[in-house]
Amino acid sequence: MNSNNLNRKTGENEAMTTLVQGLAAAGRTAQRKLARMADREKTDALQSAASELRGSKDEILAANALDITAGAEAGLSAALIDRLALDAGRIDALAAAVDQVAGLPDPVGQRIDRNQRPNGLVLDRVRVPIGLLGIIYESRPNVTADAAALCVRAGNAVLLRGGTDALHSNRAIHAAMIRGLTSAGVPADAVQLMPTQDRDAVGAMLAAAGLIDMIIPRGGKSLVARVQADARVPVLAHLDGICHTYIHHGADPEMARTIAVNAKMRRTGICGALETLLIDAAYPDASALLGTMLDSGCEVRGDARAQAIDRRIIAATGQDWGTEYLDSIVSVAMVDGVEAAMAHIAAHGSHHTDTIVTADDAVAEEFLAEVDSAIVMVNASSQFADGGEFGLGAEIGIATGRLHARGPVALEGLTTYKWLVRGNGQVRP
Amino acid sequence: MNSNNLNRKTGENEAMTTLVQGLAAAGRTAQRKLARMADREKTDALQSAASELRGSKDEILAANALDITAGAEAGLSAALIDRLALDAGRIDALAAAVDQVAGLPDPVGQRIDRNQRPNGLVLDRVRVPIGLLGIIYESRPNVTADAAALCVRAGNAVLLRGGTDALHSNRAIHAAMIRGLTSAGVPADAVQLMPTQDRDAVGAMLAAAGLIDMIIPRGGKSLVARVQADARVPVLAHLDGICHTYIHHGADPEMARTIAVNAKMRRTGICGALETLLIDAAYPDASALLGTMLDSGCEVRGDARAQAIDRRIIAATGQDWGTEYLDSIVSVAMVDGVEAAMAHIAAHGSHHTDTIVTADDAVAEEFLAEVDSAIVMVNASSQFADGGEFGLGAEIGIATGRLHARGPVALEGLTTYKWLVRGNGQVRP
Repeated sequence: MNSNNLNRKTGENEAMTTLVQGLAAAGRTAQRKLARMADREKTDALQSAASELRGSKDEILAANALDITAGAEAGLSAALIDRLALDAGRIDALAAAVDQVAGLPDPVGQRIDRNQRPNGLVLDRVRVPIGLLGIIYESRPNVTADAAALCVRAGNAVLLRGGTDALHSNRAIHAAMIRGLTSAGVPADAVQLMPTQDRDAVGAMLAAAGLIDMIIPRGGKSLVARVQADARVPVLAHLDGICHTYIHHGADPEMARTIAVNAKMRRTGICGALETLLIDAAYPDASALLGTMLDSGCEVRGDARAQAIDRRIIAATGQDWGTEYLDSIVSVAMVDGVEAAMAHIAAHGSHHTDTIVTADDAVAEEFLAEVDSAIVMVNASSQFADGGEFGLGAEIGIATGRLHARGPVALEGLTTYKWLVRGNGQVRP
Repeated sequence: MNSNNLNRKTGENEAMTTLVQGLAAAGRTAQRKLARMADREKTDALQSAASELRGSKDEILAANALDITAGAEAGLSAALIDRLALDAGRIDALAAAVDQVAGLPDPVGQRIDRNQRPNGLVLDRVRVPIGLLGIIYESRPNVTADAAALCVRAGNAVLLRGGTDALHSNRAIHAAMIRGLTSAGVPADAVQLMPTQDRDAVGAMLAAAGLIDMIIPRGGKSLVARVQADARVPVLAHLDGICHTYIHHGADPEMARTIAVNAKMRRTGICGALETLLIDAAYPDASALLGTMLDSGCEVRGDARAQAIDRRIIAATGQDWGTEYLDSIVSVAMVDGVEAAMAHIAAHGSHHTDTIVTADDAVAEEFLAEVDSAIVMVNASSQFADGGEFGLGAEIGIATGRLHARGPVALEGLTTYKWLVRGNGQVRP
């Protein structure tokens, strides 16, 4: 690289840093106003945003058509085009999701606990917004509405940076949201869409420690990996969902078959989908279980003991144990007891969702206590690993890190707390 | 720098990286065993450690004497020597602190909430250890025992890196702790003391993302600033404690004087000490309040309106509003109402502890709701900002960040949670 290029590159980064600093300052100012808005005001604002989305179908669809055309010209796959494409029904669904968030209880001001000290001081911990969040996402334009709604419901400002493929759609959805939110008193800068698609803007967001309080990446593994590697701002995310289901030797055979096939095949592309099936070597129904899995249209890659059970099973390599297929493929390892199953999970898992199927309560409790994953299940499909299914109303994502929030992250995970101390003149002896 | 130096430097860093990776791996292995230990076993282990500390006074005092001699030769100040010095009473206090932690309720396994879904799934969130923590501290050798005890109580392994001044004392205290802990079944690698004082070892700890789960710096501002600037591992800390007390015009004069003097002068060197006093311009007793503060031996630096009240008040500069004196000095600004007080706090505060003194409940509630600090107090001395005073048993530190834990951090802040999902065959439709 010659020095001209080097200088230009440095100049570009500085411009993006300055841009992000300005957006962050505006977002933080807006957030201080948003933090003081009452539950009812935020509900009204989100309902107005939903209504504006419904009323802006023509503009959103016109913008979306530009993205679809550009995507087709750029040679995007049919799957990516489908992910990008909106129609009237999808816009209604998007508005309905915003309405649903509007209806969730406001977490801000909720008391976590209260504690009266012998000296009479009364201590309350209450939930407060985190501040300014950054959401970095790919081609799904619904994130523009979903994520913004969850942030606003919890009193946070947000800086959105969507994928270039969805640029026009995101701008139209953002414009409609802003019309609704501002009509009900939310400052416009509470929800900002990055005004440039310059990749260095993402780098500037990731470096904005102290300006952006938390970044949530929504997208594929390469996006999450880049964000986790480069961020100086705390990141809430999961990189992999290598979910295991262990069939204990005492499992009910019909339950085991039903759960395994559902966990793998209901939707293969979600992070809670089963990727590695661990079958106890003493489980008497392994042949029927694997046969059912194969008959459901799933490719099965097994270790030598699994291959000996059904000749349709192909050989797994070492790499298979660490692969999130997100497809109709499952790896199968035969294991000798619950300890071996847990050792396999500890060695190869991603701390997302791991499951045991067993009729033995003591073994179930051992598995629940010892498996170190965000979600540990007994006798259920790992496809339930979802904020909506957990009763959280909606989720911003699933986190496999160890701090702040773990598993499905919903409104509570978008708040922090402060201590309120009420006295009547106490001084410390 | 010539290439030889460059190579040597790189080689040193690699050696420290390799060292920290090895220590972290050993710590993580030990933690998996510690995580499975029962409440009673950990209590016994900590009581044994306290007992070993009491029984090892001669060794610890001999080691401490080496540090004191070296410190005196190196020209350490009397204050630093005092911070370093142990005697039989201080070792008893140190052991008592470990015993106190032994007696705290085990947070591991505590249920945070339970939620039964319409499909019959039962969801529990239960507290679990975080994993491996890093504690980086300065010359107080008591941290070696305090911090290790809190980590073990919450099921975490810890890598301790103390100050060079206290090297021999730390090693003796660590050795006694390990004798006690291992006699009761805790693996020795659960509590490791960094075997080198090479400064690059600290850099290697800060870079150990994915190996060390969280770092807690305990020490002065330069240490915390360095850790916050360089860490790729999440950090729990506070950089500054610029604590404000605002005297509302309707405050009880005697209460205001008592609280202000206690908040500033009881102990000037703690992070919860008052640094900036904000007095409402309409407060009728400002002269007596400032006179009492001056008479207590405090230097008062005021704005022009404060200076007009008492000629002993010297002029504050702009820098005073952002200075944590940790000394018998207070800055004073006269403000026009609670909004102006809150604006001053928002502009100059450090989100640690801010206080209002008022007889007006509505104003108190406004202040509690709107001041964005980890601790917000009404009619009490900010010197109460302490985990022990909050009833948390003991604290590992006070955090002013916005994620994971905020304010005094005790055992709960040293845990995370996982979701336990118990079903009876549910699959997702």
